[in-house]
Amino acid sequence: MTDAPALSEIAIIQRYLAPLAAGFAGAFGLTDDCASVAPPPGFDLVVKTDPIREGVHFLPADPPEALAWKALAVNISDLAAKGAKPFVYTMALCMPEPPTEAWLSRFTKGLGDAQATFGCHLIGGDTDRAPGPLSIAITALGLVPAGQMVRRGAARAGDVIYVSGTLGDAALGLSIASRDASVASWSLDDDARAFLADRYRRPQPRTGLSAALLAHASAAMDLSDGLHLDLSRMMTAASVGATIDLARLPLSEAARAAIAAQPSLRVRTWSGGDDYEILCTVSPDRGAAFEADAARAGIAVTAIGRVTTDRRLSFPGFEQDIAARPAGWQHF
Amino acid sequence: MTDAPALSEIAIIQRYLAPLAAGFAGAFGLTDDCASVAPPPGFDLVVKTDPIREGVHFLPADPPEALAWKALAVNISDLAAKGAKPFVYTMALCMPEPPTEAWLSRFTKGLGDAQATFGCHLIGGDTDRAPGPLSIAITALGLVPAGQMVRRGAARAGDVIYVSGTLGDAALGLSIASRDASVASWSLDDDARAFLADRYRRPQPRTGLSAALLAHASAAMDLSDGLHLDLSRMMTAASVGATIDLARLPLSEAARAAIAAQPSLRVRTWSGGDDYEILCTVSPDRGAAFEADAARAGIAVTAIGRVTTDRRLSFPGFEQDIAARPAGWQHF
Repeated sequence: MTDAPALSEIAIIQRYLAPLAAGFAGAFGLTDDCASVAPPPGFDLVVKTDPIREGVHFLPADPPEALAWKALAVNISDLAAKGAKPFVYTMALCMPEPPTEAWLSRFTKGLGDAQATFGCHLIGGDTDRAPGPLSIAITALGLVPAGQMVRRGAARAGDVIYVSGTLGDAALGLSIASRDASVASWSLDDDARAFLADRYRRPQPRTGLSAALLAHASAAMDLSDGLHLDLSRMMTAASVGATIDLARLPLSEAARAAIAAQPSLRVRTWSGGDDYEILCTVSPDRGAAFEADAARAGIAVTAIGRVTTDRRLSFPGFEQDIAARPAGWQHF
Repeated sequence: MTDAPALSEIAIIQRYLAPLAAGFAGAFGLTDDCASVAPPPGFDLVVKTDPIREGVHFLPADPPEALAWKALAVNISDLAAKGAKPFVYTMALCMPEPPTEAWLSRFTKGLGDAQATFGCHLIGGDTDRAPGPLSIAITALGLVPAGQMVRRGAARAGDVIYVSGTLGDAALGLSIASRDASVASWSLDDDARAFLADRYRRPQPRTGLSAALLAHASAAMDLSDGLHLDLSRMMTAASVGATIDLARLPLSEAARAAIAAQPSLRVRTWSGGDDYEILCTVSPDRGAAFEADAARAGIAVTAIGRVTTDRRLSFPGFEQDIAARPAGWQHF
């Protein structure tokens, strides 16, 4: 990132980061050692820490605006799944080399766009230098009515299982963003490629779905490691199982086109990571109300299965595909 | 760190990290995606994010218990300086290789000791794997009476400047912990060496001083980058200056012995980092009450100078030493 004289830490903070804190009084313009945060009466804070690192969660060639967006979006996505409204965040930025003004300008532009879109403010953090991949560690705090955080582990047998948006786009987009040679065989036009790469680079946290989740969901979490693995986590947490109709997974037009050209890509729609869609369970008698609230928020939701008392996941019609493939991304 | 089969991420969380969250209901035993935090009525949260990385903030040979202690202590030190009581924290742990059970066991033992000492609980975070140095990024949340956070930038001309504890020990301890050959010339006995290395490895946040700071300090911050640099930040933030009597800096017996053998080491008492003591300013009419409250808390405080209207730092009798040496640690 170096091709100009290094900026001091204080110049980085005052010139590029402090403007992102200007809208929140308790951030003290990033001139103090800590921030002061008071949730409004009747609200709890929902807290999430999810860092992203070059080579693991994003590519060296990804634009700085996109890294910044993604670093915040992956945390806001978790808050949205819990029914929480984004509030404030801290960021620890660790760089292998001093950043240039051009890089900082683009990175903070992306962060500014993201926080304006999600409705939250930077309140503090740290910038330092260490060898190794560029790392952006955000801790996000959201607001939820007291005692109402939507839990991961509260699914009940009989509940309907929903997902938001479309699945698998980001996993396909990663191949495109990585310039994987196999993409040529997918027969996609430029718009479809750009759409999928954007789904990888710029996840869209479903903050608009928070109110519907708070009102109707028995359990919810965001999808970051693939539907199969995340579903298994959600069902295990409630000591239940699920039966899923994989033929009903919502797919984008671009993903449908790629799968039509290369049927083996279909597995990515349930095992690929980085969807940042919402997985939730809703009691059958609230299904219609949940769907109506989601529609009013402009977010597509699709029923894909049911929670079962039997503590296993079943995928009628797809058991062979499932058996042939492990259940998603794990770090260790 | 590898000499046994890798543990899964879930085993790391459930076996080693979840016990650290057991005392806080809103952490949900680390089985959910987020934590739920409600400050008691009448309190604000004070938020700090300060990561530490191998090779920058600690040494590869430092024991795992010490890394864990330090990762939490550097954040709690900031909270203490703001008058806040430690409450909860998240941790993003990034490792270049899967950790062994032996390492995890020692690391989480150190973290458990630290959180029990400081009075706070783990509520969430993330463990992942990426090339580069081991990194531990903690975000700590403390509690302070609403609107009372002690600010960095509120020093007033005429205030007395105090520091807690003793200065320079950690900078000397770093040479000892790094097995720097020059240490032989310091003529220290084993106890003195162990004391100084421990001051580097296991900073002692002055949480006991919070109440006295809340009651009496006009401004406060913790000392992490050396007295000279941190003092210049505090005075700049208030558009004031300071005159400091460096002969009055509080020194440990071990530091005195090292300086007696090698007078050039004295500079480390004002330019060395990692002290994690408190720097604060107190109106002269509250000085006696502040000293009495600090004494009751069992924490030594020493008046080392005065805040001035003249916007510069002066060090009567030491101007030549100061001119010869830059003002402390900066990352860029």
